[in-house]
Amino acid sequence: MLQSRLFPETKKEAPRDAVSINHKLLVRAGFIDQLMAGSWTLLPMGQRVVSKVNNIIREELNKIGCQEILMPLLHPKNIWNETGRWDSAREVMYQFEDSRGREYALSFTHEEIFLDLTRKFVRSYQDLPIALYHFSTKFRNEPRARSGILRGREFLMKDLYSIHRDENDFWSFYELVKGAYSEIFRRIGFNFRIIEAGGGVFTQNKTHEFQVISDGGEDLIYYCNSCDWGQNQEIFDGKVGDVCPKCGKGEIVSSKSIEVGNIFPFGTYYSELMRIYFTDSDGSKKPPFFGSYGIGTTRIIGAWAEVSHDDKGIIWSRAIAPFDVHLLELGHGGSTRKKAQDVYKKLTKLGVDVLWDDRDLSAGEKFADSDLIGIPIRLVVSDGKNDLEYKERESEVTHRLTFEGLINMFDGK
Amino acid sequence: MLQSRLFPETKKEAPRDAVSINHKLLVRAGFIDQLMAGSWTLLPMGQRVVSKVNNIIREELNKIGCQEILMPLLHPKNIWNETGRWDSAREVMYQFEDSRGREYALSFTHEEIFLDLTRKFVRSYQDLPIALYHFSTKFRNEPRARSGILRGREFLMKDLYSIHRDENDFWSFYELVKGAYSEIFRRIGFNFRIIEAGGGVFTQNKTHEFQVISDGGEDLIYYCNSCDWGQNQEIFDGKVGDVCPKCGKGEIVSSKSIEVGNIFPFGTYYSELMRIYFTDSDGSKKPPFFGSYGIGTTRIIGAWAEVSHDDKGIIWSRAIAPFDVHLLELGHGGSTRKKAQDVYKKLTKLGVDVLWDDRDLSAGEKFADSDLIGIPIRLVVSDGKNDLEYKERESEVTHRLTFEGLINMFDGK
Repeated sequence: MLQSRLFPETKKEAPRDAVSINHKLLVRAGFIDQLMAGSWTLLPMGQRVVSKVNNIIREELNKIGCQEILMPLLHPKNIWNETGRWDSAREVMYQFEDSRGREYALSFTHEEIFLDLTRKFVRSYQDLPIALYHFSTKFRNEPRARSGILRGREFLMKDLYSIHRDENDFWSFYELVKGAYSEIFRRIGFNFRIIEAGGGVFTQNKTHEFQVISDGGEDLIYYCNSCDWGQNQEIFDGKVGDVCPKCGKGEIVSSKSIEVGNIFPFGTYYSELMRIYFTDSDGSKKPPFFGSYGIGTTRIIGAWAEVSHDDKGIIWSRAIAPFDVHLLELGHGGSTRKKAQDVYKKLTKLGVDVLWDDRDLSAGEKFADSDLIGIPIRLVVSDGKNDLEYKERESEVTHRLTFEGLINMFDGK
Repeated sequence: MLQSRLFPETKKEAPRDAVSINHKLLVRAGFIDQLMAGSWTLLPMGQRVVSKVNNIIREELNKIGCQEILMPLLHPKNIWNETGRWDSAREVMYQFEDSRGREYALSFTHEEIFLDLTRKFVRSYQDLPIALYHFSTKFRNEPRARSGILRGREFLMKDLYSIHRDENDFWSFYELVKGAYSEIFRRIGFNFRIIEAGGGVFTQNKTHEFQVISDGGEDLIYYCNSCDWGQNQEIFDGKVGDVCPKCGKGEIVSSKSIEVGNIFPFGTYYSELMRIYFTDSDGSKKPPFFGSYGIGTTRIIGAWAEVSHDDKGIIWSRAIAPFDVHLLELGHGGSTRKKAQDVYKKLTKLGVDVLWDDRDLSAGEKFADSDLIGIPIRLVVSDGKNDLEYKERESEVTHRLTFEGLINMFDGK
């Protein structure tokens, strides 16, 4: 894509009210724009990142047999009344009445809606398990919307729901999801921990959270410096320096962190409240075991900016970068334009997604924008030079490359 | 995908309250499920169709230089007040107050939100044109939600918005969109007409609608049987049989139809109300010319079911079918399972998306389900036969094929 056409231009200054790093960097670089407190538009580059994140999630969930659907956002009161959450989650739900006096809630989550859907179809144990997910909007009436895109009143989430014949089948699926989530966050490039946590308005059970260690986070977690044990502060009752209760040798350390995913075991609590029963092979009626599993997809782009940046801008991983290559054309020679065009065409043909800075700006301005946006690979073509300069965003080292050398590098990508 | 795992099973009967064809067929075949009046869940096959439709739209809009974003669904009252539509569109908008007394509207469209976004960035004529689209949810407080998925209170739409330096640039882009939309509907496989219409709560100008001729439609259109002239009944003041005012020779005929897309020219009306001004090359301040362009993506799957079915079920086009091939395994021989597996693996490897009916059901039940779901190509492997049976959904003719013949057919797809 030509950068002269990309919407919008980058900004020299961060918004005055921006405190968090992700707010400052993502707004300046043109990934997101604020409509009102807690509500953000994904601009073209932000949309590209979220779409790459979504594709990674989709691939890993499909591998473990999940199916993609899309559930509505406007929900009738009666379904939320079945579990009592119309009242118990009232603080976080947007609830309203339409002009004909019908009452609705906006989706703050979809457990009840998923169960209402599946109870229409589940008759026998042979209909189980069912694991359905969607990418959709969540609305939460947060008292304070803050931390840039990390905590919004409207945001995007991938949520997965599953029901199972028995507890064994449930827990093996729960472990499959844990594995799939770990693979998703590994592919994105996060340094994360899986920790135990409480269930909020969702469950009395312990749940698991996927936490990215970050000073910009709102969570505080305690974990072992030697094994995989960890807990959110809300359920932790020890102190830093204690011996780890799991491995018995590591020490407990603590850190601020950002929750990017969570998995909730509900047992048969919701199934019974919503009266879903299936006939098991022995003819008995049983409620299925139920779990839900979320990943905050817009939050991920905020979390990434928090943990991967320097004082010049963002540093995207290849897996979720808005473009693969940033091609800077420096100087005004006709041969430079021609060279840039050749590189652009050839790489595009090889399936490489290139942002070509064709704007009439100084080298300094182009380099600054390139560092701010943070595409993993920067190529420079300039007047009077036949070869190109290659630099990775996370490194200070530049290399000279011939056109042929460049093509070899990307061929077979 | 294994059909034994596909959610949900098909239904023998249509819902009792279903009147329209799309409602009956899409529900029975398992593409959609109703949450409440006017509100539908896209089930896995419905989600697949919508996702194929969206990809076609995305490709054609990117070709004409549009960029994908995602705007929020919850909107602050003050922005809707700038154009007066908080009041004038009150009937169709869901409006509510949160627990802190702030007033919001749910997105029934996004003109104001797009203009609020772009006015933060547009300074000079060099920043124009801007053409941004998103795939998102719309909420409309319809007095009667009806016609299955054709008219919902919550539905999916692709909406594109553009602003331009002058009227000329606007109209050339308007024609580009007309061309892109025509290509989108042609690729999907619709028989459609572009007609003139009124602008509803959007504009006093004449607009253009893309209408699919269908007895299941709620619109009534008048058009020439000889040239491309056509009008919606709301602006038509002639009668059937009149000579066409455009070509002067054809006769005017009429038909019920389904609106699948529309394009709206707004001039500078909204830009002025929202005080967006750019500096032109002569230093003068001007409001940009503005247009919006919608395609109802969930409505498209309903419209398709209305116009392409027989008494056994839906007949999908290859462009938007939930799967490319429906593979039926008949009989219980171990060699049949092995043959089906070979076909499934080989086709999948070639990038063909196969639904494999591996269920323990009779041939009659499998054929009936296959006709109901309507995947364009049906392959049958059965006991005691080495070759396969090939049949297209829209044809009555079956062919016998060897495994090699089949692979040749799909190789290089």
